[in-house]
Amino acid sequence: MRNIRLIIQYDGTNFCGWQVQKGKKNIQETIEKALQTIFREKVTLIASGRTDAGVHAKAQVANFKTKNNSIPASKIKGALNGLLPHDISIKDAQEASPDFHARFDAKSKRYRYTILNSESRSPLINSYSYQVPYKLNVVAMRNEARALLGRRNFSSFQASDKKLRDPVRRIKAISIKKEGECIFIDAEANGFLYNMMRNIAGTLIDVGRGKFPKGSIKKILAAKDRTKAGPAAPAKGLCLMEVRYK
Amino acid sequence: MRNIRLIIQYDGTNFCGWQVQKGKKNIQETIEKALQTIFREKVTLIASGRTDAGVHAKAQVANFKTKNNSIPASKIKGALNGLLPHDISIKDAQEASPDFHARFDAKSKRYRYTILNSESRSPLINSYSYQVPYKLNVVAMRNEARALLGRRNFSSFQASDKKLRDPVRRIKAISIKKEGECIFIDAEANGFLYNMMRNIAGTLIDVGRGKFPKGSIKKILAAKDRTKAGPAAPAKGLCLMEVRYK
Repeated sequence: MRNIRLIIQYDGTNFCGWQVQKGKKNIQETIEKALQTIFREKVTLIASGRTDAGVHAKAQVANFKTKNNSIPASKIKGALNGLLPHDISIKDAQEASPDFHARFDAKSKRYRYTILNSESRSPLINSYSYQVPYKLNVVAMRNEARALLGRRNFSSFQASDKKLRDPVRRIKAISIKKEGECIFIDAEANGFLYNMMRNIAGTLIDVGRGKFPKGSIKKILAAKDRTKAGPAAPAKGLCLMEVRYK
Repeated sequence: MRNIRLIIQYDGTNFCGWQVQKGKKNIQETIEKALQTIFREKVTLIASGRTDAGVHAKAQVANFKTKNNSIPASKIKGALNGLLPHDISIKDAQEASPDFHARFDAKSKRYRYTILNSESRSPLINSYSYQVPYKLNVVAMRNEARALLGRRNFSSFQASDKKLRDPVRRIKAISIKKEGECIFIDAEANGFLYNMMRNIAGTLIDVGRGKFPKGSIKKILAAKDRTKAGPAAPAKGLCLMEVRYK
């Protein structure tokens, strides 16, 4: 049994997300169909994690198993890209060890949230950023973000409809950079709860516009209450940048 | 008579270029229509220069005159953006001196050509780059590009259908940077002939893949013959980055 590891880039704009949902175009199913055409058998693609409708990925990682030995790994990337639509691209395809699992073996993930901090939209990055028209205080955002570092209970930052799983995650690094009109929030964690990164971004935006005073994020974390944090920032500003493995 | 100066960003993908062409959507006419709605009179928009079908602009500069004094400059940006489609944005609107002319007063322009140097497409930058699948030698490109610097006769790099104007231009700076999968060619000149930047990019791509040996660009310039240079690189990789004035 071969185990193939893929690195996948996609523009999430026109997808209902990674996962199979009946009647809607999703990324997993789109790639599985192409794999089935190439390998002439049904395959299941396991991603490092699901991305929501509208969320992008620069380097999603996924794996699948196949009994078909007729296609060498070096040919998989080109064959898949020939079948896939223009908004999905296989950036790499390699044989992996038989026990490699894209989800369970992931050590950390890095997400980037892109804010267009401008009164006017910017057509060249419209699809990959969220426009915030009022001036944001980046220094305040940076200071508050520090409270998110380390092992924390992120109950206040997970989607309110998903309460059953362990809400503890470890954010290894978080940075906020301003480049021209854009503000980039980069966060690396051992894992992200459902909607966690978008809720963090939405809360930091509220910090930046002065809705939350100094020390707010520490209090929001301690409250373990989703209603204390800011709103989820829109999906189109979010991009899965990197998944790290041992 | 007021003279208003605009800074405009656009995604050129779905336009036939800056200029009015019958029956096709163009940027100038789209903005002029919005101006007419706001100022209740016919206005003519003068750009620093036309951009071709599919070419993008981060900061195109244009001006128009109006007798209408009812709308202060501070309201023009918002009013226009409310009427314009999502792929055009007014980034700035200011009163200019009565004699300011976006085309005649431009001292220099900077264009960027973006090459995606990768075997596989990259959905996140598909619309703003040209994919070149074979590995390009960036050092060779950089060395050859030096020959373009300074005051030169660019006959070999202008579109073959436009032979009547003075082919002498001065390239003030040209740089070639590699960042990840992308290669950026940035060139600043006192002006660009029709198709000049795309022809330079196409020729440098041919240098990078080894089709043109060392010293080729010097010879191509000296030949003053369009057929000696490489092909025009596709419009979608080109972006007008900046226009400078006195």
